[in-house]
Amino acid sequence: MKRTAFFVSDGTGITAETLGEALLAQFEGLEMEFVRMPYVDTEEKARAAVERIDAAALRDAAPPLIFDTVVDRHLRQILGTSRGNMFDIFATFLAPLEQALGKPSSFTVGGFHHTQHHQYHQRIDAIHYAMANDDGASGSEYAKADVILVGVSRSGKTPSCVYLAMQFGVHAANYPITEDDLDRGRLPAALGPYQDRLFGLSIDPERLASIRHERKPDSRYASLRQCEDEVRQVEGLFRRHRIPFLNTTQMSVEEISTRVMMEKGIQGRKR
Amino acid sequence: MKRTAFFVSDGTGITAETLGEALLAQFEGLEMEFVRMPYVDTEEKARAAVERIDAAALRDAAPPLIFDTVVDRHLRQILGTSRGNMFDIFATFLAPLEQALGKPSSFTVGGFHHTQHHQYHQRIDAIHYAMANDDGASGSEYAKADVILVGVSRSGKTPSCVYLAMQFGVHAANYPITEDDLDRGRLPAALGPYQDRLFGLSIDPERLASIRHERKPDSRYASLRQCEDEVRQVEGLFRRHRIPFLNTTQMSVEEISTRVMMEKGIQGRKR
Repeated sequence: MKRTAFFVSDGTGITAETLGEALLAQFEGLEMEFVRMPYVDTEEKARAAVERIDAAALRDAAPPLIFDTVVDRHLRQILGTSRGNMFDIFATFLAPLEQALGKPSSFTVGGFHHTQHHQYHQRIDAIHYAMANDDGASGSEYAKADVILVGVSRSGKTPSCVYLAMQFGVHAANYPITEDDLDRGRLPAALGPYQDRLFGLSIDPERLASIRHERKPDSRYASLRQCEDEVRQVEGLFRRHRIPFLNTTQMSVEEISTRVMMEKGIQGRKR
Repeated sequence: MKRTAFFVSDGTGITAETLGEALLAQFEGLEMEFVRMPYVDTEEKARAAVERIDAAALRDAAPPLIFDTVVDRHLRQILGTSRGNMFDIFATFLAPLEQALGKPSSFTVGGFHHTQHHQYHQRIDAIHYAMANDDGASGSEYAKADVILVGVSRSGKTPSCVYLAMQFGVHAANYPITEDDLDRGRLPAALGPYQDRLFGLSIDPERLASIRHERKPDSRYASLRQCEDEVRQVEGLFRRHRIPFLNTTQMSVEEISTRVMMEKGIQGRKR
């Protein structure tokens, strides 16, 4: 039986979605449709949301789930008139938080707060850094790197660098280890001065072959044999140079980024 | 009075952090230190977390806040022995969710679920797309774009594309509008066939000058006069070509991405 989950907010709805998805991931075998409804910040929009929720209730023949971070109590009451099951995130936690902090919340609609601007700027700066220092780009600013990810082609370096920048404001560069490097058994010369910032990404050869196959089908580059050789050699290189490394086969970018930060002792600059 | 907030999880802790930060943003004038504690998945690590929380309680002379998404009840009980104020996200919402869904939760530790692999792959693919189609890169695959962001240099195109890819699996390219384009009053020729996918980013000239100043201090490029001219001309170009656009001055990448998706009717591919 299909169910629909709505993530409703007066802002982007990303917090409601993040929490709702994490909670629903705790249930196996659900067939869910997810709908984010951002910027529900007027009575009119709240009533339109109720209509959409009620339509889903009829269609699914089951009450939808509503995860909301709407600050305005009156708008929440309107949402509460729908046929959905409401999980009211702010209402649930703000009262106990007010008690713990000994002060009232400001009940301000999400969005940019003055105090966030500095941290935000650092994230944006880190994204530009990741773009400019991707894949061994020439003229790279490795002296500014918090970490330099190394690994063979398609081992997950680029998405991990972008996530480290976006989520945590970390300056993450990356450098590919090529067949030439592996044949010579040496690290690329450009990395020499920065050996303490290196972190290796490895991956199971089968998974690597499958990823490469989508990029260049039936190529030598994507063959299992080639992937096995490269992975074996690059892990040998990591060990000889005492570069810490991680097998990322079963990991998301969120997990890789978190592990890299732990291993290298990097604090995020998000705040 | 400073307070410390801990985001504790058996996974990355990113959900706990996202929710905790959104809740604490509802309080003005707080002086908070934020500490993420990922991978707290054994008794030993839970006891080490308690020690760290209790040390913060002594240092701050006030109970720390704990936002946790630890699945294991026994580990949560250990965390509960600390001097912190615990906001137990899963415990709070899982019981009512079980009732709403009419089934028990699996209480599995966060991380990669089998069903997520397809969606995850689409996000990674979108990140590679954003990198390859940034800043009018040659050989770009605009036919695959869900949206092509256009605007003058440093109007926020690149971070927005990366966020659209990372968070929503959207294929977002971007193309800079140069002084030459503005002088000719025409869109770059490469964009001609894709006019329905274009979305414009604009920005207040004062903000643009400040951003450019950090990149090239005291340059003509960063002068207020130059920024005023470019912004006026690019908005004229957007209007003449009926390209929808947004002033991003007061917006985060989360907000820009959400607005772009709403205006262009783009559904995320995250799931």
